[in-house]
Amino acid sequence: MHKGEITRQRIIERAAPIFNERGYAGCSMHDVMEATGLEKGGLYRHFSTKEELAAEAFRYSLAKVAKLRTEDLDRSQGSVHLLRAFIARFVEKTSPVRGGCPLLNTAVDADDGNRVLRELAREAFKDWRERLAKVVTEGIRNGEIRASANPRQIANTIIATLEGALMMSRLEGNKTALRDAQAALDTVLGCLTA
Amino acid sequence: MHKGEITRQRIIERAAPIFNERGYAGCSMHDVMEATGLEKGGLYRHFSTKEELAAEAFRYSLAKVAKLRTEDLDRSQGSVHLLRAFIARFVEKTSPVRGGCPLLNTAVDADDGNRVLRELAREAFKDWRERLAKVVTEGIRNGEIRASANPRQIANTIIATLEGALMMSRLEGNKTALRDAQAALDTVLGCLTA
Repeated sequence: MHKGEITRQRIIERAAPIFNERGYAGCSMHDVMEATGLEKGGLYRHFSTKEELAAEAFRYSLAKVAKLRTEDLDRSQGSVHLLRAFIARFVEKTSPVRGGCPLLNTAVDADDGNRVLRELAREAFKDWRERLAKVVTEGIRNGEIRASANPRQIANTIIATLEGALMMSRLEGNKTALRDAQAALDTVLGCLTA
Repeated sequence: MHKGEITRQRIIERAAPIFNERGYAGCSMHDVMEATGLEKGGLYRHFSTKEELAAEAFRYSLAKVAKLRTEDLDRSQGSVHLLRAFIARFVEKTSPVRGGCPLLNTAVDADDGNRVLRELAREAFKDWRERLAKVVTEGIRNGEIRASANPRQIANTIIATLEGALMMSRLEGNKTALRDAQAALDTVLGCLTA
């Protein structure tokens, strides 16, 4: 990497947890200057607007969290096992970027706010839903999941339940809500194979 | 009400949707001055800090949304029917305060932020969970719900799934995620009576 690229990457890495913790309005370019030790000129050489930096920071956080939640999941034991493994991973692992799930944070922060971030969050949920729905569809195809199951509905339910529970767990400082959600999703998945 | 109380109430009512939409960092006392038409002195006569106003605005929003979600629910047809009615109400009705669910917004905004708001949100979830758990407990007592059901787990699951789905629905501008969540919760409730 060129020196300029290294600096740019360092700005993104330092800005990501600040945006993730404090939201778009709560993170100023001045905060990023302090976190990176850069002067105004140095920062604006790489990012001409806060919006541009926030978008890159979100992409960075999202990639980190997606990797943690999906890498090395056991895909050899069928669709329902894979969904359960994904759910267990979500419950066990905390976000590698300080401040919790960047997708949840950005969705709530941007639903009435920044358009660029809103669009990025929307795309990320769409992508996540499609990946999970594909697992369900494969399970239907190989006879593991009953044919009347609705892949989109199951995908949306897994995402909604986990993200809602994460929100409660973070607020309450314990994993009770996440573990309760996991048990409920287990019931839902159990019904799929019945 | 005294004139002073009327002014104080008007400030809370005007500030509530701004805090709800933009979060704590995104709403300044200047924004509230603009929304109320008050001068700085007039505003600070009633609220000496932004934190104090934000807490009152949250209490106001929370009371409005709690009323909308629970008033006149049919309690005559048993616990499971009551839970289903509550879920249906949540799915159908949008927040009476602009910006979506104040509980979700404040929870995500304050989990790494303002302590007073975090404590208020925590209390609100606790209260909500206890109310729903009590309905489940009554259902167990009267034989409607099987005895092995865990009231707290069911309450947490309903809240997490609905709030997570609301977050997705608001982001995506349609009710698909909420309706999918409703269908999944229906499955979970169906298992309770089996």
